[in-house]
Amino acid sequence: MDDMKKKFAIGVDLGGTNIVCAIVNYDGKIVSSLKTPTLAERGKEATIKRIIEAIHKNIAQSAIAPANIMGIGIGAPGPLDVKRGIINFAPNLPGWRDVPLKKILEDEFNIKVILENDANAAAWGEKCFGAGQGINNLVCFTLGTGIGGGIIIDNKVYHGNNYGAAELGHMTVNKDGPKCNCGNNGCLEAYSSAIGIKNRIRDRIKKGVKSQFLNLDNIESIESISLKSIFEAARQGDKLTSTIVEEAISYLGIAIANITNILNPEMVILVGGITNEGDKLLNPIREEVKKRAFYTNYKFLKIVIGELGDNAGVLGAAALAWVPVS
Amino acid sequence: MDDMKKKFAIGVDLGGTNIVCAIVNYDGKIVSSLKTPTLAERGKEATIKRIIEAIHKNIAQSAIAPANIMGIGIGAPGPLDVKRGIINFAPNLPGWRDVPLKKILEDEFNIKVILENDANAAAWGEKCFGAGQGINNLVCFTLGTGIGGGIIIDNKVYHGNNYGAAELGHMTVNKDGPKCNCGNNGCLEAYSSAIGIKNRIRDRIKKGVKSQFLNLDNIESIESISLKSIFEAARQGDKLTSTIVEEAISYLGIAIANITNILNPEMVILVGGITNEGDKLLNPIREEVKKRAFYTNYKFLKIVIGELGDNAGVLGAAALAWVPVS
Repeated sequence: MDDMKKKFAIGVDLGGTNIVCAIVNYDGKIVSSLKTPTLAERGKEATIKRIIEAIHKNIAQSAIAPANIMGIGIGAPGPLDVKRGIINFAPNLPGWRDVPLKKILEDEFNIKVILENDANAAAWGEKCFGAGQGINNLVCFTLGTGIGGGIIIDNKVYHGNNYGAAELGHMTVNKDGPKCNCGNNGCLEAYSSAIGIKNRIRDRIKKGVKSQFLNLDNIESIESISLKSIFEAARQGDKLTSTIVEEAISYLGIAIANITNILNPEMVILVGGITNEGDKLLNPIREEVKKRAFYTNYKFLKIVIGELGDNAGVLGAAALAWVPVS
Repeated sequence: MDDMKKKFAIGVDLGGTNIVCAIVNYDGKIVSSLKTPTLAERGKEATIKRIIEAIHKNIAQSAIAPANIMGIGIGAPGPLDVKRGIINFAPNLPGWRDVPLKKILEDEFNIKVILENDANAAAWGEKCFGAGQGINNLVCFTLGTGIGGGIIIDNKVYHGNNYGAAELGHMTVNKDGPKCNCGNNGCLEAYSSAIGIKNRIRDRIKKGVKSQFLNLDNIESIESISLKSIFEAARQGDKLTSTIVEEAISYLGIAIANITNILNPEMVILVGGITNEGDKLLNPIREEVKKRAFYTNYKFLKIVIGELGDNAGVLGAAALAWVPVS
């Protein structure tokens, strides 16, 4: 065990835009990392080759002997089969169908490879090295372009029956709400993700509503505007954005209240771009949860922002290499 | 172990109206049972005495030697502390505050006593002896006067951080929905429990809506009308009840879809009076879940009605006596 603590693990965060690769020590310190574009549009084989090259390059630049590397953990978009290490399908990786990424990388590197859903990897990263250290039961919301989640129960990632658990962004919060990418109406993601917020602003622009604070002359200019500017405009009482931002926060609070009543976790961790809002996000969320969850469930619940920023996923993926295979 | 299989356990279902007590064998067969009114209005001490008397009487009538009884499991209304065996508070048991029921009964009977939330006990009963046999991960909805739930993960009752998990009736399904007994607005219980359905009918009667099929001349006559009659009237297109019943079923479907996306269980079990509707309830629920949950989560999910009827709680409570104390 002491020997293990001197070793390293490789974490890979496989996204639709970038591949991030990091060599991590037992304490969660990144000793060497690199980032390279996924170039997903070049197809599956090309992307797999890029992943392999990135890992080789990362090892080389770290100057760590391969014998001192415990394994490789990959956080990847799902749905995927964790046990068999297969990515079944990934909306942002065109052509990926039932790709046995675990086996491909094990054959290449001859070490243990663990494949995990990217949101679960982020939750595991916060659990091992971030806000969730020492917490046995926690739920992590990954608030980005879309909304995902990870559930840690009894110090383990909870996967459900077929690795489909913790799809927190697809909780229905309003049965007649806006259409979500998943096909359902009124998902949390359709209200509180970056894509949801921007889609709702776009719909309102189409109806002729104008912003008093943002330069939004045409519908597509919304793409280039930051969430920060949108939240700032909303706080100033902007007609176009204010109720949309209020509802984004309120529905996120409702989703957390629901998780609080369903799972009674010790901690809820929020990660992703929107968490840059800090207390301006946390305070109204806590109010909403207090209003809606059972008092004793709320009273002992910590609602916090993750401590690892964008590194949660890659750190969590690496940390999986230390988990004994069960 | 074989010896244990020849022994018996006592299950107690402590309700606001009745105390049900049953001696159960290892296969979940009730060998002797009795039911006695709780008479909760006589106060805490009187009710505790009634519980003790009921258990003594149950043992005596069974003619089983006390040495062959493994333990006593109690399913009780919460919130409660399972580990310490204390009922913190029970809305239907006036005067009950921090009652150490486990200790009281252990002192009286000198055998192991396990206290569990009543909905968790029902879930555990279905898991051990009913619809959930052989299923590792399942979620049980108890659909009665109110709505509760039990979550089984990895063959164990999941309790959460402070025994507050599985409050499935208090999932917010409509943020501006009707007031719930818990203080929140738009809980599942406010739409889909017997109390919720009747409250909503009462509100509509107050607004002057009349039923074409039910004899509901005054508001209070709703109390004596069965859910069965209400559902039947709704199916005939009754103005007063039809949209209320449709929404009760639809929101229950939404809650199950949410559980499906959050926990990806192998099975959802429904128990309680409303399940007498059978396929008339299950079919629209399955449609709603199919529409809203991730396809792979829905595809492998079984949504079923419990097999133990009103005995789920008492059987589950008894079954807890066989679980090793961890």
